[in-house]
Amino acid sequence: MNVPELIRRKREGGELAPAEIAEFIGGYVEGRIPEYQVSALLMAIFFRGMSFDEAAALTRCMMTSGRTYDLSHLTGAKVDKHSTGGVGDKVSLILAPLAAAAGLVVPMVSGRGLGHTGGTLDKLDAIPGYRWALSEDEFVRQLGTVGCAIIGQTPEFVPADRKLYALRDVTATVESIPLICASILSKKAASGTRALVMDVKFGSGAFMPTVEDSRALARQLVGIGNALALPTVAMLTRMDRPLGRYVGNALEVIETVEILRGAGPEDSTELTILETAEMLVLGGVEPTVESAIERCRQHLADGSAMAKFQEWVAAQGGDPRIADDTSLLQLAPDTTMFNAAAEGFIEAVDTRALGVAANTLGAGRLKADDQVDLGVGFEVLRQPGDPVRAGDPLLRVWHRNGRGLDEARRLAEAAYRIGPNKPADVSLVLERIG
Amino acid sequence: MNVPELIRRKREGGELAPAEIAEFIGGYVEGRIPEYQVSALLMAIFFRGMSFDEAAALTRCMMTSGRTYDLSHLTGAKVDKHSTGGVGDKVSLILAPLAAAAGLVVPMVSGRGLGHTGGTLDKLDAIPGYRWALSEDEFVRQLGTVGCAIIGQTPEFVPADRKLYALRDVTATVESIPLICASILSKKAASGTRALVMDVKFGSGAFMPTVEDSRALARQLVGIGNALALPTVAMLTRMDRPLGRYVGNALEVIETVEILRGAGPEDSTELTILETAEMLVLGGVEPTVESAIERCRQHLADGSAMAKFQEWVAAQGGDPRIADDTSLLQLAPDTTMFNAAAEGFIEAVDTRALGVAANTLGAGRLKADDQVDLGVGFEVLRQPGDPVRAGDPLLRVWHRNGRGLDEARRLAEAAYRIGPNKPADVSLVLERIG
Repeated sequence: MNVPELIRRKREGGELAPAEIAEFIGGYVEGRIPEYQVSALLMAIFFRGMSFDEAAALTRCMMTSGRTYDLSHLTGAKVDKHSTGGVGDKVSLILAPLAAAAGLVVPMVSGRGLGHTGGTLDKLDAIPGYRWALSEDEFVRQLGTVGCAIIGQTPEFVPADRKLYALRDVTATVESIPLICASILSKKAASGTRALVMDVKFGSGAFMPTVEDSRALARQLVGIGNALALPTVAMLTRMDRPLGRYVGNALEVIETVEILRGAGPEDSTELTILETAEMLVLGGVEPTVESAIERCRQHLADGSAMAKFQEWVAAQGGDPRIADDTSLLQLAPDTTMFNAAAEGFIEAVDTRALGVAANTLGAGRLKADDQVDLGVGFEVLRQPGDPVRAGDPLLRVWHRNGRGLDEARRLAEAAYRIGPNKPADVSLVLERIG
Repeated sequence: MNVPELIRRKREGGELAPAEIAEFIGGYVEGRIPEYQVSALLMAIFFRGMSFDEAAALTRCMMTSGRTYDLSHLTGAKVDKHSTGGVGDKVSLILAPLAAAAGLVVPMVSGRGLGHTGGTLDKLDAIPGYRWALSEDEFVRQLGTVGCAIIGQTPEFVPADRKLYALRDVTATVESIPLICASILSKKAASGTRALVMDVKFGSGAFMPTVEDSRALARQLVGIGNALALPTVAMLTRMDRPLGRYVGNALEVIETVEILRGAGPEDSTELTILETAEMLVLGGVEPTVESAIERCRQHLADGSAMAKFQEWVAAQGGDPRIADDTSLLQLAPDTTMFNAAAEGFIEAVDTRALGVAANTLGAGRLKADDQVDLGVGFEVLRQPGDPVRAGDPLLRVWHRNGRGLDEARRLAEAAYRIGPNKPADVSLVLERIG
C-alpha cells in the first residue's frame, strides 16, 4: 500500500476503499505504519470527513482489532445504550437492570470519567465490593444468567481504539465526528450488542455544546450504525443543567436506588424510562415506545427492576443491601452549602463548570491518573427557572476536610447566571433520530 | 508548551506566534516533539495556510537550525537565484559566473534532481573534476576570490528542512505553499545571500503546473521574503516546453558553453540574461532592468562571463578546457531519433513526460538512490508551433546500449500533441512579481 498516496487522496476529499482502511488500521495496530502517517491521515479526516461507508469500514476494522464478545448463543435480544457523557448522568445504572428485567440482554462495556464528565465505572466503584474487571467468560456467563453486566475494557478489547484515541488526544484530532462515531460504535459492536440507543447530549455540560454539532454527531451515529447493520436510535438530550438530584459517585448510586424505588427525581427517572423504552422497541420486546414506557413503569412499580438490580450487583460481587440501606454507600464526612450571589431567576447554569467544580472536590479526573474521591459531590437544590434570593443555597456539598472547596465554590457559584427573566420550560429530549 | 493546543489553534484557523513556531521547530529538531505531532500540524497548515509573519518565523527558525554562512565581510552584493525546477533548465550554470562577472557575490547551494526535473549538482557532475562538496571555509573563500560558487548541502546545512521535508514526503504534506516557501527561503537565507530572484515555473513540466498555483507560490515567496528582510523578485516563466536545446546532464553543460559563447538558443539565453539582470538590479549594480540586460550582453560578448565561468569551474577542481573543447564532456555512445507520428503543427508537449523519458534513459532519478547516466539525453529539434510531417525527427537521442530506449520512445513520442492548429507565439516570461 502506498500510504502517502492514500493520505493525499483523503486530503483532496477522495474516498478510501474499505480494504484500504482495513489495511491501514491493521498496519497501524501491528506497528507497520508509523504514527506520523496515522496522525496526518487523522488530521486530513478532521478536515474532509468520511462517508458512512468509510466510517463503517473504519469502525468494523477497529472492532475486530481485538477480542469481540460472542453472545449469539443467548436467546434474548442484545441491546445496549451509550451516552456521550455529562454531569449527573447515572442512567446506565438503572437502565441496565430495568431492560434486563424486561427480557433484554444488556452487554455494557463502560469507561472511567475524564475531564468534566463522570464515568460509569467510577460510580460503580462506590458500590462496596463491586467488581467491573470481569473476564470474558464471566461476562458472557453473567449475561446468560442475569441478563445484564457492566464491565470495564480489557487491554484486548478494541486495541485499535485505545491506540487511536491516545494519538488523537495529543494531535488535536479528537473533535472529528466520524472518528468519534467509530470510537463509540467499534466498542459497542465488539461488546456483542445488536442494536443501540445513543443519548447524544448538547448544552453547556456536553462534549459537544451546540445543538448543531450534536445533531450532526447523532445523524452520523445512526447512519454509520445502519451501514454496520447495527440498528441505532439517537436522542438529542439537554445537558445545559445537571441531570437529576446528585452529582458525585456514591451520591449518584443513592439516586439510582431512589429511582428504582420510584422515588427519584422526575428528569433522571423519565430519561431513564424513555431510553430503556427505545431499547425494548429496538429489541422487539415491545411494539411501540408508548407500550414500552408502560412496561418500564410496571417493572419499576412491581419491584422487578429493583430485584434485577440487586441480582446484577451481587453477581459482580457488590453488596445488594445498598438497595435497602443507602447508608452503606460512604459519603464524605463534611457538608456545606454553595449559595446564590443575587436575587432573581436562575437563567442558566454553566454545567461544564459544575462538573469541573465536582472534580476539584475529587469526584473526577482532570488527568488520567488522578485519584477519585467516591464520597464527594453535590445535591442540586435549584435548577434553571427556579427563583432564588441572595444567599439561598444552590448546592449541598459533600467534601473531605475542605479539599478543593474554595476553588469549587468559586467555580460553582459563578456557574449560575441569575437574572430577572424566568426561562421558558423546556423538554429534556429535543428530538429523536433513527 | 501545550503542543495539542497549538495544533488545535492552527487547525481552527488561528495564528501562531513566532516564539511558538520557534519552540515547536526547535523541539522537533532536538527530538523533544514527536513526529506524529509535527505531521498533524503540517496537515493542519496544508488546510489553513500560514500568514506571511508565520511563514517568515518558520523560515527563520529553519534557517538557524544549523550552520549559516557568514558572508558579511565580502564587499560585493550577495544575490542568488532559485528555480522551482523544470526540464532543460541549466540557467544557474551561466547565470552564476555572469552575475559574478558583473560584480555580484553568488553563494549558490543546489540540489540533485528528483522526479521528472533535473538537478544542478547532476549537471555539474558532468564537468570532469568538478567538486561540489566544498567545506564552509572553501565556499566562503571562493566567494571572496571568484565571486561565485555552486555547492551541495552539507548535513549541517538547514537540518530542520531536511527533517521536515523527509516527513512531508511520507505524510502527503509536500504541496503546501507556505511550507514550500519556507523550505526554499530557509536554504537561500542560510547560504548568506541578501536578495533573491525566484524563477517560478508553470506549465506541464513544472512542479506546480497551473498558472494560478504558481502565481500564488510566487506571491507568497515575495511576501515571505520581504517579511524576512530578504528582498525577493519572482518571475512566472513557462515550463510547458523544454528550456533550450538540450536535456541531459553533459548535454546541458554543452549548451551552457554555447550560451557563454553567444551561440546558444534564444530562449535559454534570454531567460538567463533576464534573471541575471534582475539580480544586478536587486544587488544595486545596475539602476534598471534594461541597463542590466545591456551589461549582461556586454559580459557575454566580451568574453568576461566565459572567463569567470572558467575561473569558477577551475576553482572547484573542474576542467576549464571544456569552454574551448566540449568534446571533453562525455556523451553516451549511441544516438537515434524519436519521430513525429503525424503531420501538422506541434500544438503542445507534455514536458513532464519528456522529463520522465529522459530519466528512463538514465538522465535523472525516479528514486533518490537511482544512479544517473551523465551522458544520455535529448536534443530538442522541434518546439510547439513548429510544423512537422509524420516521421520527422522531434528529438535526437543519446542513449547507452538502448537502455530504457523503448519506454523513453513511447513516452516521448506520445508527449507531442500534433494537430491542425498552429499555437500562437507566447512569451517565455508571463509576469514579474516583486
